[in-house]
Amino acid sequence: MLEEIRQQPAALERTLRDALRLAERLKKRLAGHRPRLILLSARGTSDNAALFGRYLLEIATGIPVSLAAPSVYTLYGASVRLDDVLVVAISQSGESTDTNLVLERAREQGSLSIGITNEAGSALANLAEYTFLVKAGRERSVAATKTYTGQLLCMYLLAYALGGPVNPEDLRRLPEWTEKALALEEEIAERAERYRFMDHAVVVGRGLAYANAFEFALKLMETCYVVAERFSSADFLHGPIAMVERSFPMFLFTPSGVTWPAMREMLGKLDQLKADSLVITDQSNREALELRRQAIVIPARLARKSALPEEVYTQIPYIVPAQLFAACLAAEKGLDPDQPRTLTKVTRTL
Amino acid sequence: MLEEIRQQPAALERTLRDALRLAERLKKRLAGHRPRLILLSARGTSDNAALFGRYLLEIATGIPVSLAAPSVYTLYGASVRLDDVLVVAISQSGESTDTNLVLERAREQGSLSIGITNEAGSALANLAEYTFLVKAGRERSVAATKTYTGQLLCMYLLAYALGGPVNPEDLRRLPEWTEKALALEEEIAERAERYRFMDHAVVVGRGLAYANAFEFALKLMETCYVVAERFSSADFLHGPIAMVERSFPMFLFTPSGVTWPAMREMLGKLDQLKADSLVITDQSNREALELRRQAIVIPARLARKSALPEEVYTQIPYIVPAQLFAACLAAEKGLDPDQPRTLTKVTRTL
Repeated sequence: MLEEIRQQPAALERTLRDALRLAERLKKRLAGHRPRLILLSARGTSDNAALFGRYLLEIATGIPVSLAAPSVYTLYGASVRLDDVLVVAISQSGESTDTNLVLERAREQGSLSIGITNEAGSALANLAEYTFLVKAGRERSVAATKTYTGQLLCMYLLAYALGGPVNPEDLRRLPEWTEKALALEEEIAERAERYRFMDHAVVVGRGLAYANAFEFALKLMETCYVVAERFSSADFLHGPIAMVERSFPMFLFTPSGVTWPAMREMLGKLDQLKADSLVITDQSNREALELRRQAIVIPARLARKSALPEEVYTQIPYIVPAQLFAACLAAEKGLDPDQPRTLTKVTRTL
Repeated sequence: MLEEIRQQPAALERTLRDALRLAERLKKRLAGHRPRLILLSARGTSDNAALFGRYLLEIATGIPVSLAAPSVYTLYGASVRLDDVLVVAISQSGESTDTNLVLERAREQGSLSIGITNEAGSALANLAEYTFLVKAGRERSVAATKTYTGQLLCMYLLAYALGGPVNPEDLRRLPEWTEKALALEEEIAERAERYRFMDHAVVVGRGLAYANAFEFALKLMETCYVVAERFSSADFLHGPIAMVERSFPMFLFTPSGVTWPAMREMLGKLDQLKADSLVITDQSNREALELRRQAIVIPARLARKSALPEEVYTQIPYIVPAQLFAACLAAEKGLDPDQPRTLTKVTRTL
């Protein structure tokens, strides 16, 4: 898992090179036409990438987005109107029968279908009209890492293809920034020692960072067997915050930008409750640094050239310390993150 | 909280009487027109009711449904195309500024807007073109119960108004079935003793029952301070199942119908892992009963007259034992479920 985490800058570069060409083609094909809805279909880590897409695509394109509930199609056999809907299925292996079925239903109704997968020869790649290939190389660890960041990258490219103000120049800087986040490995390994006996936790992210909260929590569940919940700061205040007692372990993604005031307010509440909060942020969030909290600080974000919200490109670098943390904590707990108990790499569900 | 749980049959009857009239009016207004998308906007318990609507409305009407991410509008100020979208905001108090804003954006674009709230004089009721009133009477407990089942009822009526094969006769039987579920109170109070020291848990529901898994987990978090996660059986198998060890507390909603085979398979896996599983089911699921497991069994479901999947009307009666369980466990733990620490009845978020 650690090795695969470290491969991410190279994997991102390879993926970008190929996928950008596809995005340009798709941009031409889509020019002048906007689907009435984007439907994203996925499971597990890929579903967390879809959750990021759910925010990014609405913000960047103004087209409404829905996350598919596969059972509506597989178990209930519902006939959902999918004409003029852009359907995107995301799957590392490309062999998730249920997510693929959603794509099939859309194709039958003449809709445009896009796959995002690591496997060029997979069922998904065969089904979809266009396929973004995540060029991450073989992923051996059951816990997906480089697949996730590759899928996030494809989401930016999809937004670009749909005419969103994503600047490919900004995407080209992501491998470098990811490399800088990787330099935190030693610091994070030391920090993880302190969490050896943690058996539950809550991860919070807001807006564009919400998906990373899901992904960090999933990694903690899969590799460290920590009962890790994930919330947006708004949902957390609507009930679950009642769980928080003295020393309750909290992890928060706090980029600067429009979500910061809500996160800052929440940090204040957590301090009153004497929770144990660790923030993941970067050097551009001066206010967060001035609070002198427990923090993992990624080197300053790179200047960006797009019209999108300032934290829009933080998702890939920000998940890296979280991945490192999960891998290091698993080691600290004496667990093997590559082979979590009970799991296999490809999961098939009804 | 217990008192309000017991008021549900009467609250449902009152709500149905009023709301059915509105549904009939809406049905006429909508006749021949199908919006291209239904957008549901809510937070907390109301968001769990929205999650049920997400499944029910797609299955019953074939119109795609999306759960709104309020921050896309409030924090990012995105201009999402909402013309010809039916927007439904759900809020007990009707004063959730962020969910109301989504509705406002839809109205500005000439779309039909519907509110579901307990408060006839609320901001939401004033904003929405049509308002379903949940006639639950004043809800004093911070943990919402009768509000949730009232909102679920409105979801059925919305499906009916949109031409879905919901039969009002079936809805009229719900208060009676809910009454029967309430008869389990004493049994559940005894059962809760066993869970006195439980500090984490996982609740699983699939498809139409997924929302109840969210709601049961939320009640456990809010009133018992249990770190309670919630998953669909499919998502749970994609990673989080690695957390499960001997005696891990699991709660599963297992109505008979199309979701049962997946739930049965999952129960088998949990048994291999020696997890501690409790199922909530009803007498019509003979197979579940024959397994002679730890179970809360609701008296046989009432005959139904609609073309919808057989478990479609189980959501309201099935949440009742879960609500009772949370209230009884809170008492067992010496906590006051009406006034959870840190929470207030109306939560305002950015």
